[in-house]
Amino acid sequence: MNKKEIAANKLTSLGTSIIEDVTKNKIPNIQVPSRGTSNIVFDEQKRHYVLGDRYGKRSLGNVKQIKKIGQMVYMANFCKDLVQREKTATLRELYYVSEGWDVEFGDQQESNIIGEDLEVTLGMTREDLGLMPEEDGASVYGKITLQEDDIEINALRSGKSGYTISPTIDEVEFLDHDVKRVIAVETMGMFHRMVQEEAYKKFDTLIVGLKGQAARATRRFLKRVNEELKLPVYICNDGDPWGFHIAMVIISGSAKLAHVNHQLATPNAKFLGVTASDIINYDLPTDPLKDIDVLRLKELLKDPRYRDETWKTEIKKMLKIGKKAEQQSFSKYGLEYVVDTYFPEKLESMEN
Amino acid sequence: MNKKEIAANKLTSLGTSIIEDVTKNKIPNIQVPSRGTSNIVFDEQKRHYVLGDRYGKRSLGNVKQIKKIGQMVYMANFCKDLVQREKTATLRELYYVSEGWDVEFGDQQESNIIGEDLEVTLGMTREDLGLMPEEDGASVYGKITLQEDDIEINALRSGKSGYTISPTIDEVEFLDHDVKRVIAVETMGMFHRMVQEEAYKKFDTLIVGLKGQAARATRRFLKRVNEELKLPVYICNDGDPWGFHIAMVIISGSAKLAHVNHQLATPNAKFLGVTASDIINYDLPTDPLKDIDVLRLKELLKDPRYRDETWKTEIKKMLKIGKKAEQQSFSKYGLEYVVDTYFPEKLESMEN
Repeated sequence: MNKKEIAANKLTSLGTSIIEDVTKNKIPNIQVPSRGTSNIVFDEQKRHYVLGDRYGKRSLGNVKQIKKIGQMVYMANFCKDLVQREKTATLRELYYVSEGWDVEFGDQQESNIIGEDLEVTLGMTREDLGLMPEEDGASVYGKITLQEDDIEINALRSGKSGYTISPTIDEVEFLDHDVKRVIAVETMGMFHRMVQEEAYKKFDTLIVGLKGQAARATRRFLKRVNEELKLPVYICNDGDPWGFHIAMVIISGSAKLAHVNHQLATPNAKFLGVTASDIINYDLPTDPLKDIDVLRLKELLKDPRYRDETWKTEIKKMLKIGKKAEQQSFSKYGLEYVVDTYFPEKLESMEN
Repeated sequence: MNKKEIAANKLTSLGTSIIEDVTKNKIPNIQVPSRGTSNIVFDEQKRHYVLGDRYGKRSLGNVKQIKKIGQMVYMANFCKDLVQREKTATLRELYYVSEGWDVEFGDQQESNIIGEDLEVTLGMTREDLGLMPEEDGASVYGKITLQEDDIEINALRSGKSGYTISPTIDEVEFLDHDVKRVIAVETMGMFHRMVQEEAYKKFDTLIVGLKGQAARATRRFLKRVNEELKLPVYICNDGDPWGFHIAMVIISGSAKLAHVNHQLATPNAKFLGVTASDIINYDLPTDPLKDIDVLRLKELLKDPRYRDETWKTEIKKMLKIGKKAEQQSFSKYGLEYVVDTYFPEKLESMEN
């Protein structure tokens, strides 16, 4: 059974279980795993946040819960229709579609939460249910061939901005590749630099331009190339708490998405830089840390995802020097330096 | 002579004219067209803002102007090198590169302004000079084949997120196409909707996903398909002052870029919607106008770019009903409605 059939079955079951209860004169209820802070735990073995085993019960016997169950059933019905017709909708579209339903949402925030309820209840991602966030997928450049429906795409022949990861990345098949690793970079400026300096040839690598915080589809892509194609994944971001955390969310997932981290996190992915040590060793142009940077770095020190000694050392070092640096600051030594010198030195130190 | 040779020549001339002055014992100076508000005029015939003929003179005999001339010459030299080596750099990289020069910039704002000085002095865009903004180009889907270097790209076979317009769009060649028009939409949500509903077939159209405010490369692309391929361009955005203005900047350019609007504006492009009339006629889900929306709409009424009666009527109507609507709000009538009903009706009314 493929994912779509599983999704359709699970969505149908949600409705039939309610009908069965009714015909048996039982009060229908739905068990929704709790997403409260106290039920989100960091799983040391899986190396990402997971949900604990607490759950809430929504019962049609409870007047306060009837509306939420109604919204959930309407949404499940809409998703079943989407999945069966092989369509997708954005969360925004779903919100507007719901204007035609007998149950209403006060705002999109409310419909988004019911969407998450549905994810966690069925144990599937909202993408599996046909619901897509409106995010911009990363750009991919290099020797990989993918198949979307009946279209074959070569990410080395898609133009200088590369292949854009589609929101429906789970339906994309990896046909062939000729690379040894994947390097993801935070900015499209660095992406274009690497394309221009032919980093894909020099390092036998795919180049992934994250465009800031990685979209869910981008995280699925990185997880899949790491696990299905067995390619090591390196992340190079700005050397500041925000760059660190963009990398960490790719590596260990987020607490908010504890219920889907097993599909999104890539625990084997590695942060290549820019580290506080890089700032010192390469004498990079810097900006002083702002109060909010310092605050954020101190938060990261307490975060279980940053439990490795290397992370702790680098965060403390950044706090000590009081400086941050952008990934594009290597241009101080010329445009080619980052590809000719920095990446080879760092890759060498990480792979040997 | 191609654009690159012209750029290299102009950049070289800037330096040689200074050297000639020096050898003739004349005080070197550079004439920089003024970008002050009073020198920006709306050209009724060209239908976009242009620069007037006032200019400032920067002289090496004026102590206050020596630094700016030095910065300009350094930057011109860097750009000449870029153009000759067929490379590009982001404005951010340029700023960091300048750390190695004898003249320095206080911040990137300062180097960006010198970049604009160079554009306006040489009468070329900064892209012609090898300098790229770090913007995300639009996505293009549909029957068009393009050539980037020796790579042929079919925008119908680049994946569901389409072909991404490259910052170096001016070097891209249009090889072949089989469409009758271009429809650009503000959000990627609407882009994916149109791809899914096969709007490219139904309307013989290219679909362009703007991703909000259109990048300069996107505006060049739209201008080129309109003028080189003679394709009508329609823009469908959110029905609010911001959606209006995203369209207007594509159509009539911006005041700030008066010196390059002749390369960026597409005066023949048309705003398809969402208009205030659409909100009424299609009984769309709306949000009330906020104070800042009202303020902005009143500003637009005074803007010469909105001089057409249709624009004035629509802006006044929106102020009167006090409501705005997003383009995705058509989903109230089902996901397909926008492609099955709205677009055909609007295109019919605009083309006949």
